[in-house]
Amino acid sequence: MTVPRALEFWFDFASPYSYLSAMRIDKLAEAEGVAVLWRPFLLGPIFKSLGWDTSPFVLQKEKGAHMWVDMARQCRKYGLEWSRPSAFPRRGILPSRVALLLDETGRAGPFCRQVMRLNFVEDRDIDDTAAVAEALAAVEIPADAMIAAAGLEETKSKLRAQTDLATARGVFGAPTFFVGPEMFWGNDRLLDAFAAIA
Amino acid sequence: MTVPRALEFWFDFASPYSYLSAMRIDKLAEAEGVAVLWRPFLLGPIFKSLGWDTSPFVLQKEKGAHMWVDMARQCRKYGLEWSRPSAFPRRGILPSRVALLLDETGRAGPFCRQVMRLNFVEDRDIDDTAAVAEALAAVEIPADAMIAAAGLEETKSKLRAQTDLATARGVFGAPTFFVGPEMFWGNDRLLDAFAAIA
Repeated sequence: MTVPRALEFWFDFASPYSYLSAMRIDKLAEAEGVAVLWRPFLLGPIFKSLGWDTSPFVLQKEKGAHMWVDMARQCRKYGLEWSRPSAFPRRGILPSRVALLLDETGRAGPFCRQVMRLNFVEDRDIDDTAAVAEALAAVEIPADAMIAAAGLEETKSKLRAQTDLATARGVFGAPTFFVGPEMFWGNDRLLDAFAAIA
Repeated sequence: MTVPRALEFWFDFASPYSYLSAMRIDKLAEAEGVAVLWRPFLLGPIFKSLGWDTSPFVLQKEKGAHMWVDMARQCRKYGLEWSRPSAFPRRGILPSRVALLLDETGRAGPFCRQVMRLNFVEDRDIDDTAAVAEALAAVEIPADAMIAAAGLEETKSKLRAQTDLATARGVFGAPTFFVGPEMFWGNDRLLDAFAAIA
């Protein structure tokens, strides 16, 4: 029996630092021979449980101001396109449901990068059926069937359960990586997470 | 006229991630030919202004739990000694006043590393006259005169003004680095801050 070399990548489509990881992770994983499990979830309910009605980057003005400056710098460093979204945090429930379904068949990565691009490069509404259909089409996944499946009660429950699972595992922000039970928080820990797979 | 190549290092003696930077920064600075300006300040009043009565690592249980695991991992990565302090966040007003006085003459680094060691390796009370005297003696600075100067009303005011200045410049956590007006938050940005000096 071989032990699977896998990295769980828990992310929220609204999260800027999740964008950085989403754009970097598959190339790094390929070089390391590691499988990436894409785990979309919603930070909103986790923030709510802490008594916050929005992102700490909104609630803490100075922290938010630094984050936008830092994101521009990090994107330059990683060679990633970047445009500050005009809406933040952007609601992304529909693409999260789609990503959850795609993760079940190991095909989430390319779609998720398309959605991240829509949010953080093209400044588009990502909780919109047309935008999600466009992202699916771009990675050659039949959009209509997928969007219909995303709207099923079963899928909605799955996303709620996914967020509950994140909470139960101690996730408090995004991105968060797991190597087995070991948790790593933040894009700055992505290489540490890979290093922990041995 | 030469432009000074300097990095401002704003830190709090209670801050675990400030410990990581304090132990790394002088070696990195020497290699880069950069001067380090040690800027002790108190996070407490900044947290208070956000409505918090202690560190977010205490207020947010899951975030705190991750931080302790992460700190052990980061210290292994950097080859630093580490022992989780039994008190957190540890009050460090006296050593902050001393560090402030030493920074004025460019001699803060070795003393600050001693104090960080007392907190994060030896698990000692650092707001204690005997402990601060020991740290001063270890770096061959006459302790009695320095501790007397630290107790002057003028020095107390200076530390309050320093913390006000941090707030005015948008500091919301520690460590924070400045390269001119450019701010970098967190030990994970230390190399980025050095890279910005050009």
